[in-house]
Amino acid sequence: MKKIRRNISAGEAPEKVIFIGDKKMDKTIIRRLCYSHDNVHETILDDKRDMSEFTRCDGISWFQVYGVHDVELLSMLGKSFDIHPLILADIANTEHNPKMDIFDHQIFIELKRMTYNAKTRIVDSEQCCLLLGKNYVMSFLERDDDVFDPIIKRIKSGKQKISSASSGFLAYSLIDVIVDDYYSILEQIGEDIEDLEDTIIEKPTIKDIEKIHSIKHSLIYLRKAVWPLREVVKKFDVEAADFYDKSDYIYLRDLYDHIIQIIDTVETQREILAEILDIYLSSVSNKLNQIMKVLTIISTIFIPLTFISSIYGMNFKFMPELEWQWSYPILVTSMLIISGVMLFMFKRKGWFS
Amino acid sequence: MKKIRRNISAGEAPEKVIFIGDKKMDKTIIRRLCYSHDNVHETILDDKRDMSEFTRCDGISWFQVYGVHDVELLSMLGKSFDIHPLILADIANTEHNPKMDIFDHQIFIELKRMTYNAKTRIVDSEQCCLLLGKNYVMSFLERDDDVFDPIIKRIKSGKQKISSASSGFLAYSLIDVIVDDYYSILEQIGEDIEDLEDTIIEKPTIKDIEKIHSIKHSLIYLRKAVWPLREVVKKFDVEAADFYDKSDYIYLRDLYDHIIQIIDTVETQREILAEILDIYLSSVSNKLNQIMKVLTIISTIFIPLTFISSIYGMNFKFMPELEWQWSYPILVTSMLIISGVMLFMFKRKGWFS
Amino acid sequence: MKKIRRNISAGEAPEKVIFIGDKKMDKTIIRRLCYSHDNVHETILDDKRDMSEFTRCDGISWFQVYGVHDVELLSMLGKSFDIHPLILADIANTEHNPKMDIFDHQIFIELKRMTYNAKTRIVDSEQCCLLLGKNYVMSFLERDDDVFDPIIKRIKSGKQKISSASSGFLAYSLIDVIVDDYYSILEQIGEDIEDLEDTIIEKPTIKDIEKIHSIKHSLIYLRKAVWPLREVVKKFDVEAADFYDKSDYIYLRDLYDHIIQIIDTVETQREILAEILDIYLSSVSNKLNQIMKVLTIISTIFIPLTFISSIYGMNFKFMPELEWQWSYPILVTSMLIISGVMLFMFKRKGWFS
Amino acid sequence: MKKIRRNISAGEAPEKVIFIGDKKMDKTIIRRLCYSHDNVHETILDDKRDMSEFTRCDGISWFQVYGVHDVELLSMLGKSFDIHPLILADIANTEHNPKMDIFDHQIFIELKRMTYNAKTRIVDSEQCCLLLGKNYVMSFLERDDDVFDPIIKRIKSGKQKISSASSGFLAYSLIDVIVDDYYSILEQIGEDIEDLEDTIIEKPTIKDIEKIHSIKHSLIYLRKAVWPLREVVKKFDVEAADFYDKSDYIYLRDLYDHIIQIIDTVETQREILAEILDIYLSSVSNKLNQIMKVLTIISTIFIPLTFISSIYGMNFKFMPELEWQWSYPILVTSMLIISGVMLFMFKRKGWFS
Amino acid sequence: MKKIRRNISAGEAPEKVIFIGDKKMDKTIIRRLCYSHDNVHETILDDKRDMSEFTRCDGISWFQVYGVHDVELLSMLGKSFDIHPLILADIANTEHNPKMDIFDHQIFIELKRMTYNAKTRIVDSEQCCLLLGKNYVMSFLERDDDVFDPIIKRIKSGKQKISSASSGFLAYSLIDVIVDDYYSILEQIGEDIEDLEDTIIEKPTIKDIEKIHSIKHSLIYLRKAVWPLREVVKKFDVEAADFYDKSDYIYLRDLYDHIIQIIDTVETQREILAEILDIYLSSVSNKLNQIMKVLTIISTIFIPLTFISSIYGMNFKFMPELEWQWSYPILVTSMLIISGVMLFMFKRKGWFS
Repeated sequence: MKKIRRNISAGEAPEKVIFIGDKKMDKTIIRRLCYSHDNVHETILDDKRDMSEFTRCDGISWFQVYGVHDVELLSMLGKSFDIHPLILADIANTEHNPKMDIFDHQIFIELKRMTYNAKTRIVDSEQCCLLLGKNYVMSFLERDDDVFDPIIKRIKSGKQKISSASSGFLAYSLIDVIVDDYYSILEQIGEDIEDLEDTIIEKPTIKDIEKIHSIKHSLIYLRKAVWPLREVVKKFDVEAADFYDKSDYIYLRDLYDHIIQIIDTVETQREILAEILDIYLSSVSNKLNQIMKVLTIISTIFIPLTFISSIYGMNFKFMPELEWQWSYPILVTSMLIISGVMLFMFKRKGWFS
Repeated sequence: MKKIRRNISAGEAPEKVIFIGDKKMDKTIIRRLCYSHDNVHETILDDKRDMSEFTRCDGISWFQVYGVHDVELLSMLGKSFDIHPLILADIANTEHNPKMDIFDHQIFIELKRMTYNAKTRIVDSEQCCLLLGKNYVMSFLERDDDVFDPIIKRIKSGKQKISSASSGFLAYSLIDVIVDDYYSILEQIGEDIEDLEDTIIEKPTIKDIEKIHSIKHSLIYLRKAVWPLREVVKKFDVEAADFYDKSDYIYLRDLYDHIIQIIDTVETQREILAEILDIYLSSVSNKLNQIMKVLTIISTIFIPLTFISSIYGMNFKFMPELEWQWSYPILVTSMLIISGVMLFMFKRKGWFS
Repeated sequence: MKKIRRNISAGEAPEKVIFIGDKKMDKTIIRRLCYSHDNVHETILDDKRDMSEFTRCDGISWFQVYGVHDVELLSMLGKSFDIHPLILADIANTEHNPKMDIFDHQIFIELKRMTYNAKTRIVDSEQCCLLLGKNYVMSFLERDDDVFDPIIKRIKSGKQKISSASSGFLAYSLIDVIVDDYYSILEQIGEDIEDLEDTIIEKPTIKDIEKIHSIKHSLIYLRKAVWPLREVVKKFDVEAADFYDKSDYIYLRDLYDHIIQIIDTVETQREILAEILDIYLSSVSNKLNQIMKVLTIISTIFIPLTFISSIYGMNFKFMPELEWQWSYPILVTSMLIISGVMLFMFKRKGWFS
Repeated sequence: MKKIRRNISAGEAPEKVIFIGDKKMDKTIIRRLCYSHDNVHETILDDKRDMSEFTRCDGISWFQVYGVHDVELLSMLGKSFDIHPLILADIANTEHNPKMDIFDHQIFIELKRMTYNAKTRIVDSEQCCLLLGKNYVMSFLERDDDVFDPIIKRIKSGKQKISSASSGFLAYSLIDVIVDDYYSILEQIGEDIEDLEDTIIEKPTIKDIEKIHSIKHSLIYLRKAVWPLREVVKKFDVEAADFYDKSDYIYLRDLYDHIIQIIDTVETQREILAEILDIYLSSVSNKLNQIMKVLTIISTIFIPLTFISSIYGMNFKFMPELEWQWSYPILVTSMLIISGVMLFMFKRKGWFS
Repeated sequence: MKKIRRNISAGEAPEKVIFIGDKKMDKTIIRRLCYSHDNVHETILDDKRDMSEFTRCDGISWFQVYGVHDVELLSMLGKSFDIHPLILADIANTEHNPKMDIFDHQIFIELKRMTYNAKTRIVDSEQCCLLLGKNYVMSFLERDDDVFDPIIKRIKSGKQKISSASSGFLAYSLIDVIVDDYYSILEQIGEDIEDLEDTIIEKPTIKDIEKIHSIKHSLIYLRKAVWPLREVVKKFDVEAADFYDKSDYIYLRDLYDHIIQIIDTVETQREILAEILDIYLSSVSNKLNQIMKVLTIISTIFIPLTFISSIYGMNFKFMPELEWQWSYPILVTSMLIISGVMLFMFKRKGWFS
């Protein structure tokens, strides 16, 4: 995710279509769903069938392209649907940020489809591009993914609003389902954070720092994916006026609310993580203090006592105390008193709390 | 509060009404208060009575819905009052941020009703939705709550401004009473902060960090609840022009001032908490320094003395000093001088302050 | 200052006048200064005299109200001068932030009058409200205060610009004299900061942290008082057009410059305080390092030597060295050499600098 | 890079052309590429040939100036192409920030050409100035650089869009190729950061701080170079309308997207670096804790034991224990028990984890 | 610089001219330079000569006032040139921030003239006021300063653009020469920072903190001086239209670029200073770790050994080992083995790196 590899095209003509990213599947698959309010028809692109026949449809056509590494296929699509070469270059470059570009007859939208690996606490992101035309939508994913399955199901069931709506409504639904996924990532991150909160005061370990670190990473990448979406959705209803029923505006506003809420939650979670880091550091320094107290109490009591006994371990000929009968018990008693006094002082300083 | 559970509806049609949240009461209660400046009439929804009769009223109708988990009841309300399905979905989803949505004949407002648990220092938030129509207001709370009791009392007393005012004024009054509650939370947090300030320099403990942590949490959630209200109230007087006496504008401005003041106080308290954390850390490192000083003074004095006495504890045959008569007193005297010199040096370095 | 007590009115009608704050004097005093360019007349409100006579004046009337806890008196004033109940509620609530409200025939301004206690390093703030009408100004202070004395003197002297100017110019002068006080607070804080800067490197103590803390507090409250004033003064010249000579605009701009400069200085002082905190922490950790060096040097030299001498304190029968004649001097010499080598190594590591 | 040397011209007339910077090559080289869609012609400035002949061209002229220290040559160019003296002064001063200045018949753009030294982790920046006229572009670099080679190649190949486009498109292409280089710098920095992430938890050394430091430096300078470019490219399409085909606007938008993405990545990398610093500090304090634990365990076990044995090393005449037969084994056994108990307590405190 | 002394005028009429600041010279000097494109004439104000004759001039008059403490002289100037009393008050108050005030026939500009003391690393600032009229400019400095000498030289040389330009161009030139000085301050600060960077990793001392501290101070004050200039220069070309040739606009833009670059550099240097502080702290904590390692290695090796030898220093009658012939060599050998094992363990933990 952190890699940026655009430089392989440095100096090349900007409209040259070059695949940048990891190839995640072998052969690009193209499915088409042609539907109107009373009719659904699904086709899979056959190698022999030519494109022109493939594009014929009475209602709304939804082209689902899985895999964007096949540069030739992209060019062919480009010619059939009159797509600007720069759009094709953007589709093939999987490392772009979300954005929306408006063309005369098309709207091009880039999104990030995100998944969260609960074990490594790393979010993974794939590119998802949407190309919206008058009566078709093209979706481009990096691999064969099931993220759009609920939409396909709703269309096929044929009774829902989506079946009789515009191509703009389909595009909205696709963005909505991707945004819905962000919620579940946030939920999992939220659980990880709660786990951290529970353990960090009792037993702070260096592993916790690594966890905080990887969650922070995930939040940074999530924010990077969501933040530009705000603008995209905000502009969508004005810019997509041709492809869109004005009365469906309320759905966009609903989506916009969700995006704002996600951004908000990301910010809140970042603040809470910062706090957890503070707690970790305090907890660690508290531990160090405890250790130092133990060391100091032990040393402060026994070092002077050892000194005293070492005095009477000297071999001088003339040490009158050595001969006295009560020296030993007196000495031991004074040692006990000295340690008692010291312990009392430590107690008063609050070192045992 | 931290949980986000919207994903149970991921991929579902956005207008499908799904309850998201914790069910906080058994059976949804609906009360209606129908009032005009000389007449107050209260009804409770009976299972047998049908909705249509329930809605008849000459003045302003205030429907108080307690409990939003009954999805069927919500749908029935939706049909009776021509409420958009997306509004119903928002009412049933208790984890939204505050916002205002404008429809042709209705205004929909979401708020957070907040309560503060003084013991755990945790704020708890419930959703409160308001739906404002020409001559009715519907309020939706998650459970049977007494937050609106003062308003009900003022309406029933019949002599106050509210009795003869518009439905917009009722909505304003409901928002105002919820915002008033934020003040009392801030007051309690303010007291907790003052307690922390008093104890943190004298006796910093790791428990204080937990307290700072939970207060910070509360402030984060409080800010999250208040911040979007600013926009809501700002737009309210323009957008709610149909439901609202223009001359009552000054009340909205008053409410707006209160919200600004709450946001301001939250920010101030956050800054003061940050300071308290600084003080805590300084105080802890000060304690560590004190401990290290004690350890160093004791070690530095007694370790060399113990070495000297261990010298004369050796069993060599030929150690002339051992035979001398004044060895022992001379040695003890020099030890006293050495410790005296060291103590003087520590004093000069300011280690006893 | 930190307390917020508005909740005693939670749920009450917003226009109900409730005194919120500490009662700072017994009996409210009202003085009136009626002046024109050749005439000054001062009256003190007598209990028996009725309000109507009190309000008669040919030039500009300046009503000085000292004490705002007398809710009845406020209501009486409200009726005589046609003041909106919400304004009266704001006057009685001493815990509002600075703001300006525009009414048809009046402008209402809230300010904070601040004083600095040099010993405790705490700023204290009182509310100051101004109500500006066509030919009168009402000022409301929480207690009998001498802050406006210079203005009274200038008016009585009769020769200055203020005597022949509009009611707007009087309001400007009152704001100006309160803002002037902020300068002297900043000056005293500046001196405290310079004192801190001088002592913090040499002798950092935990007391300094408390000082930094209380200065920061003061700056936070000062900023809170000044920041909203910016907007108030900015809008004043447009909104107060009826009460104000357009040619006096330059005075407002001058006041605005002063406010900006105060905000600027507050920010600068906050930055410098943050730096001082950094220096304090570095200084403390430097001290800790010094202590650890002393401990380590002493321990590292004497612990091995003590071990060596303890070897020859053992009572084994067969220890040939004990019998040799030169054992003792050889051992002492080697000990001296060992300590010399160690001291040399510490020196090379730069531990004595 | 950090040096600012403009003061050598302090007080001089602002339009005086003074070279400020390091001279990076001996003799200024000027190449001209004159091309139209079917014709490419390259010339190198000969000392004898006069400027006027040099400027004759039917299509687009691209003057590539390598080396800007030759003030006389710049003045000569200035006269031939009617360049304002302030532009010439800006070209000769290599320490300006990126900017765009609009003149009646020319657009002047300053950029930073950046290179990254992978070993020292230092970015190096040179000035690149572009002067865009109706049918010519002048590029000024500090030394003979191969950054524009891909563009030259594309022009010479003659089949690409650039060959038949406007002078504005050439300027765009030059900016684009310089921006492409930023990507490769970010990629290398990204790799350095990943290396740091891998080693910092296991083996944090003070060298890592130096690495973090130099990467941060690079990011600061990179951001400084890219940030103002945003504005430049944003304004370019409006301001350069005369030199530019409106239909090529989409290329500019593409460039703008790239710049936004670079700024974004720089910010992300800065955040990640801040995290790495946090991890470093935690890791170091963790190591200190480990060390202190070892010290404390050893000291706490052996110091009391040594004291006990020193007791029985005293030479008092009357110590009954010394005579008993089982004293020694009993003492050794109790010592073993004491250390066992201590180890158990340390274990329970979690000091061995 | 940190002092704010305006309160000596608290409550005074705002237009009263009171000198606030340190008196930096004895007697105010006024020089006049009257010039047109073919004529330069210099006059020094003589006590006897009256003002009116002094003001006669055919071209542009530049009045250079050195010393602003002579309030009477300022008032006299005010009358002769119709200067508003508030301007005079601003001139006499040397502690204002930079700003521009527009009057009908005059523009008043305040700047900070800054100098840097390389030894103490403290910037010193003086006030510089400019008053711009139709055909005159008045400059007010706090003392006799040579900052404007280059301008005087350029005017006297008579051949440069400035000689034949408007009064607005003169004002621009004066601002430009003051801004040029900021560059040289930044250059010196940059050198100080580079020195710090070189020494801070090797030998961090508490002195470095003081250096960082004073450089930060300087940057804070420099930013305070430059930041408002941005606005001043931005508005200048519109507001000064009457005093200014529209064609000279490009010079203002050049000045604006310089100011932006200075602000930018200040921000960059502040970021780098923050980094240096981080490095300092890491370096110090690294040193502490080194010290602790030495202490722990020495203690951990010798404390157990000393314990063992103290065991055999006990005087029990029945200790069989004491009688055995090989006890001593066996014991010494086991001690060597124990220390060897310990050293090996420390090595494996990486404590010697």
